[in-house]
Amino acid sequence: MRHPARAAMSPPRQLHLNLNFMNAGSYSSAWRRPESEAADFIDPAFLVRQAQIAERGTFDAVFLADNPALPDRPDLRPYQALEPTVVLAAMAAATTHIGLIATLSTTYNEPYNVARRFASLDHVSGGRSGWNIVTTAETGTARNFGLDEVLPHDQRYARAVEFADVVTALWDSWEPDALVGDKESGRFIDGSRIHPIDHRGRYFSVQGALNVPPSPQGRPVIVQAGGSSDGQDLAARHADLVFSVAHSLDEARSFADGLRARLLRAGRAPAEVVICPGLVTILGSTEAEAKRRERELWESVPIDYGLARLARTLNVDPGRLKLDEPLPADIPFPENHSQTFFKGTVTLAQRNGLTVRDLVKAQGGGGTQHRLAVGTPEQVADGIEAWFRSGAVDGFNIMPDVTASGLKVFVEEVVPLLRRRGIFREAYSGRTLRDHLGLPPPSVRHRRPAAATA
Amino acid sequence: MRHPARAAMSPPRQLHLNLNFMNAGSYSSAWRRPESEAADFIDPAFLVRQAQIAERGTFDAVFLADNPALPDRPDLRPYQALEPTVVLAAMAAATTHIGLIATLSTTYNEPYNVARRFASLDHVSGGRSGWNIVTTAETGTARNFGLDEVLPHDQRYARAVEFADVVTALWDSWEPDALVGDKESGRFIDGSRIHPIDHRGRYFSVQGALNVPPSPQGRPVIVQAGGSSDGQDLAARHADLVFSVAHSLDEARSFADGLRARLLRAGRAPAEVVICPGLVTILGSTEAEAKRRERELWESVPIDYGLARLARTLNVDPGRLKLDEPLPADIPFPENHSQTFFKGTVTLAQRNGLTVRDLVKAQGGGGTQHRLAVGTPEQVADGIEAWFRSGAVDGFNIMPDVTASGLKVFVEEVVPLLRRRGIFREAYSGRTLRDHLGLPPPSVRHRRPAAATA
Repeated sequence: MRHPARAAMSPPRQLHLNLNFMNAGSYSSAWRRPESEAADFIDPAFLVRQAQIAERGTFDAVFLADNPALPDRPDLRPYQALEPTVVLAAMAAATTHIGLIATLSTTYNEPYNVARRFASLDHVSGGRSGWNIVTTAETGTARNFGLDEVLPHDQRYARAVEFADVVTALWDSWEPDALVGDKESGRFIDGSRIHPIDHRGRYFSVQGALNVPPSPQGRPVIVQAGGSSDGQDLAARHADLVFSVAHSLDEARSFADGLRARLLRAGRAPAEVVICPGLVTILGSTEAEAKRRERELWESVPIDYGLARLARTLNVDPGRLKLDEPLPADIPFPENHSQTFFKGTVTLAQRNGLTVRDLVKAQGGGGTQHRLAVGTPEQVADGIEAWFRSGAVDGFNIMPDVTASGLKVFVEEVVPLLRRRGIFREAYSGRTLRDHLGLPPPSVRHRRPAAATA
Repeated sequence: MRHPARAAMSPPRQLHLNLNFMNAGSYSSAWRRPESEAADFIDPAFLVRQAQIAERGTFDAVFLADNPALPDRPDLRPYQALEPTVVLAAMAAATTHIGLIATLSTTYNEPYNVARRFASLDHVSGGRSGWNIVTTAETGTARNFGLDEVLPHDQRYARAVEFADVVTALWDSWEPDALVGDKESGRFIDGSRIHPIDHRGRYFSVQGALNVPPSPQGRPVIVQAGGSSDGQDLAARHADLVFSVAHSLDEARSFADGLRARLLRAGRAPAEVVICPGLVTILGSTEAEAKRRERELWESVPIDYGLARLARTLNVDPGRLKLDEPLPADIPFPENHSQTFFKGTVTLAQRNGLTVRDLVKAQGGGGTQHRLAVGTPEQVADGIEAWFRSGAVDGFNIMPDVTASGLKVFVEEVVPLLRRRGIFREAYSGRTLRDHLGLPPPSVRHRRPAAATA
């Protein structure tokens, strides 16, 4: 929701839509549909085409999740295989407006490299890049990077905060007009307008400055998705856009209230952050058709997969989950795993009195921890509009059940309804992701001193 | 040079040409020419267009050097600013055949990330990616990554060898047919055909497997450019393509002989490695015009820049270099800097009795440590052909003096001559960089066991 003072001066508040592009789709059996090809998840033509379809739908951005490790069960479905900045750079060359957000872990990268990668993507895309900060909680990933176990939650987040501090300082290390390019005098850059950051912290020592001139956005957009207390503090300090999990409007409202309170405590205006929960869409021309589609998808889910994913989310042995019983009552809170997905999953089951089987179904056959919207384009648009108008969310991360068919239907059938209702853009009004998100320009630490402007 | 037994069965030996794409050009004053724009080095349209021009010239590859730090004198000329895999991914989307080689440091990255990045670029480009292994000797870079000083030469190379061992093992961690994609049975991947690498070494512990399915090339091409003894050992173990420095045919021959001897000791055939030195081209319709172009470029070099770069290459204080005197006789061998460029520079000065000023001019105003070829297209083609036919080199990394004009002239004027002489392709005969380079398919560690083929 926009800050009231701001909203009063601005055009009507507009919805934000991102494509959370989950390979074959967010339903775990999506790859088995006739319209899907097994190799879609690594096929550049397929990947780029989806970005173009989302751009036709004037989405704010394409978002790519990431984890630098094989998933638990690669035998049963596709996953996010390709390194996301490489994919987004290829998409950048084949699109003109849509934002491009990649997930990169603060635990398994160096801040100088990450600052540079997103600044470079911002140049290559003409100002459309965004970085989703994650701390990566999987043991298998730790073992690809010299660790036997995952770092404790608090250490991961302490490192993430310092990491993002360094990255943003590097983005700010050039004054905007440092690149002079005066052929006559031979002065290419005014070196006095580039500032080493000389960071020496607990996790990182980085001299700087960045070797990339200021990118079109100044600062690429920062996205944060973790709902733990540490995660929300990180968001309050650094995020422009927050990806949340909400299975009910109450949850969405409570999350937004909490985050906005933290923003205020961090000295930021709530309007500076766009909040979007995930929304898995299963569309049909009629409600019955949508339900049939869901049933078909559900029927081709290997139940082993759904159980394994649920057990992973809950951090329990799959043997403890009985398909036709409710969740065990005594599952311990997973201090060092994804707290957001744990809480969302347990709440979803308890509120609705779901058996394990129902729960796996409600999670797209283990494909997602986000809310499912099953229905006609009108019904889905109604839900989107209602949540948006409530002020609890600024938009959604759309997660088509099956990428190869669901994205196109959303763009062709749902987007026009949202446009007709006056809550979603007819065309892009700006060129950068910051423009699409309606974000204020980032504050830049190094301004040209007043004396130098004379 | 191709192995004789191989050459007898193959079509006539063919020249290889790569574009070593140095921002505005390899002459340090290139950016001041009327045809250059100051922002070319960060302009995606400019960057992509050069790849397209090189592809029109049926070059084997575009090569991007890299150093994750600001250079010493950003005030005086452009440099390699953008992260190269991001740039190459954008080029991949706008080209169809040309190879795409990026430099990434083994000192400031993690092998899992690097293996994944190049495998991803290989997918995105349809089999055109290559990784140039460097160990990065600059102090300023060390200070962007938590170190006060550069690691010693032997440690950098020991780490680089283990790093490349891990990367190639990760590329080999899937059997080629592990991706099953059987919608009927629901089996997406045959997990028994993916193998953790379980690497535990001096520098890295990496469990694996890679999370990227085998890319079109199986293994992206590996490039190595360091001419030190450690560098050549690394090349003998891992390289498919070696970028060398040679100011004379004697130097080129001696380098090739040394490298081929190491290859044999490493159990590899000399034909498995393509050797290309750098060649800076300054072209004119007449010899006088080419010389005038060189003179104009030289006249707009700030001499401070040339001296600073030379002092850096020699690892001496710039104050020790007197413009109209020869190099000081007592410059110590720089154990921990680029030995290749040091040796090439000292040899160039001594063989030709150059003053410091002459030497800076012979190095493109401090823009390059590679050989300059100044002349008409015929003269430059003659030189290329003579070196190629001698067997001392397999081709060249072409470094236009001024990118914005020199690349196009090379493609339009020199390439047709080389084609007419029957030593360079009229069109690409394959689709991958390995195809262009005439490399054998990489050996893959994990083959399907004989029993499983039944």
